[in-house]
Amino acid sequence: MKDSSMIFGLHAVMEAIRSDREIDTIYIRRELQSDLAKELLAAVQDRNIVVRRVPVERLNRITSKNHQGVIAYLQVVPYQRLEDILPFVYEEGRSPFVVMLDGVTDVRNFGAIARSCECAGVDALVIPARGSAAISADAVKTSAGALLSLPVCREAGIAEAIRMLHDHGVMVVAASEGASELHTSLDLGHSPVALLLGSEDEGIAAAHLRMADRRVRIPVYGSIQSLNVSVAASVLMYEVVRQRKLMK
Amino acid sequence: MKDSSMIFGLHAVMEAIRSDREIDTIYIRRELQSDLAKELLAAVQDRNIVVRRVPVERLNRITSKNHQGVIAYLQVVPYQRLEDILPFVYEEGRSPFVVMLDGVTDVRNFGAIARSCECAGVDALVIPARGSAAISADAVKTSAGALLSLPVCREAGIAEAIRMLHDHGVMVVAASEGASELHTSLDLGHSPVALLLGSEDEGIAAAHLRMADRRVRIPVYGSIQSLNVSVAASVLMYEVVRQRKLMK
Repeated sequence: MKDSSMIFGLHAVMEAIRSDREIDTIYIRRELQSDLAKELLAAVQDRNIVVRRVPVERLNRITSKNHQGVIAYLQVVPYQRLEDILPFVYEEGRSPFVVMLDGVTDVRNFGAIARSCECAGVDALVIPARGSAAISADAVKTSAGALLSLPVCREAGIAEAIRMLHDHGVMVVAASEGASELHTSLDLGHSPVALLLGSEDEGIAAAHLRMADRRVRIPVYGSIQSLNVSVAASVLMYEVVRQRKLMK
Repeated sequence: MKDSSMIFGLHAVMEAIRSDREIDTIYIRRELQSDLAKELLAAVQDRNIVVRRVPVERLNRITSKNHQGVIAYLQVVPYQRLEDILPFVYEEGRSPFVVMLDGVTDVRNFGAIARSCECAGVDALVIPARGSAAISADAVKTSAGALLSLPVCREAGIAEAIRMLHDHGVMVVAASEGASELHTSLDLGHSPVALLLGSEDEGIAAAHLRMADRRVRIPVYGSIQSLNVSVAASVLMYEVVRQRKLMK
């Protein structure tokens, strides 16, 4: 992330919170216990801000300046709320089309997926507050600017997001190499759909995979046995596009 | 490219050619005119080796050692010949499935496309001798190893490759943002097919686009108006897979 999106020092960060600046993540020195530190922690409580307690060495690596144990990154793009977007899409007479990432931490893959989402007409890209790639200047660049226009929702967690999607009648389709059903055999018709993809190393967390309504795999015929996650996401998105918009 | 795949010096490179080492590219100092240099140029004439005349400064940037005006890169992967692969595929009772890249120089995109080719069961990835990404250790890594098993054909040029594909009854389908036909409206059935993709900046050269049998576009619905080339290639490959293998 660029330095221009970073602020540090207890008072500076506290002031940023008070003035409702859009903060992405706050790193706080693990041992920090002052009254002002407690006040800061109380202030972020009800906001969509990730707080990470880290060793002081980590803060020293970020800046050599006097950070007083607190560094905050401002949001490069504003987050939106999934619970606001879903009713909005229905009101427009459309079926929601959502993409959700479970643990995709590689910035280039994340940016590439955002670019494909924007091209495929996805309504929202959902990421969890923890264990996702930072939406940095690099991610925006890889996304070819898509992250500046595509709605991104940072939800508390994937489980919460799936429950919210279910509450709004959205079918969750998980991409899983072990699934027996092929991605093209799904009848996506015009039903509301959320595609769920995991990281290349870990895949989707087992608990989240169980919550999905359908599990599908993209067939592979070589010896590598797995597609890049941004390619897998894009192939699935364009299968939705094909069924929704291109079939006669 | 790793240093281990590089050799330099007039005699060393000449010896590598004589002993049939697989050489990818030879960089020769622009002004080099000695008898041995002429002998070297004559020796590479009939081999599938790219020779580039460059200023001496370029050679000095590659190595600080005494290169004598000549540096050669060995092939990281062996190339195969399209004219050998096509009859082989037909003899196996299958329809050739080829992917061809016109001017894709980004190593990561190239590696990603190779990975998808391997997964989609592509028979050959065709690149031109000039204006393509080097098959470096980085490319192999990005391809998740696909470049070590996928047949790669480095042909003299795209025009020559298209003519060879036509001679073998293969339909060439070019991906072009300006095409009126959608990628899903092609009836690929079981016919032999070669997908042609260009670089993100330049697209496919106009002369090559004219030689293609069909031009198709992948629809985009956002404001960015173009997919990443490795994503576009993968979406097209999986449309071929869907029509060939997954349709009931």
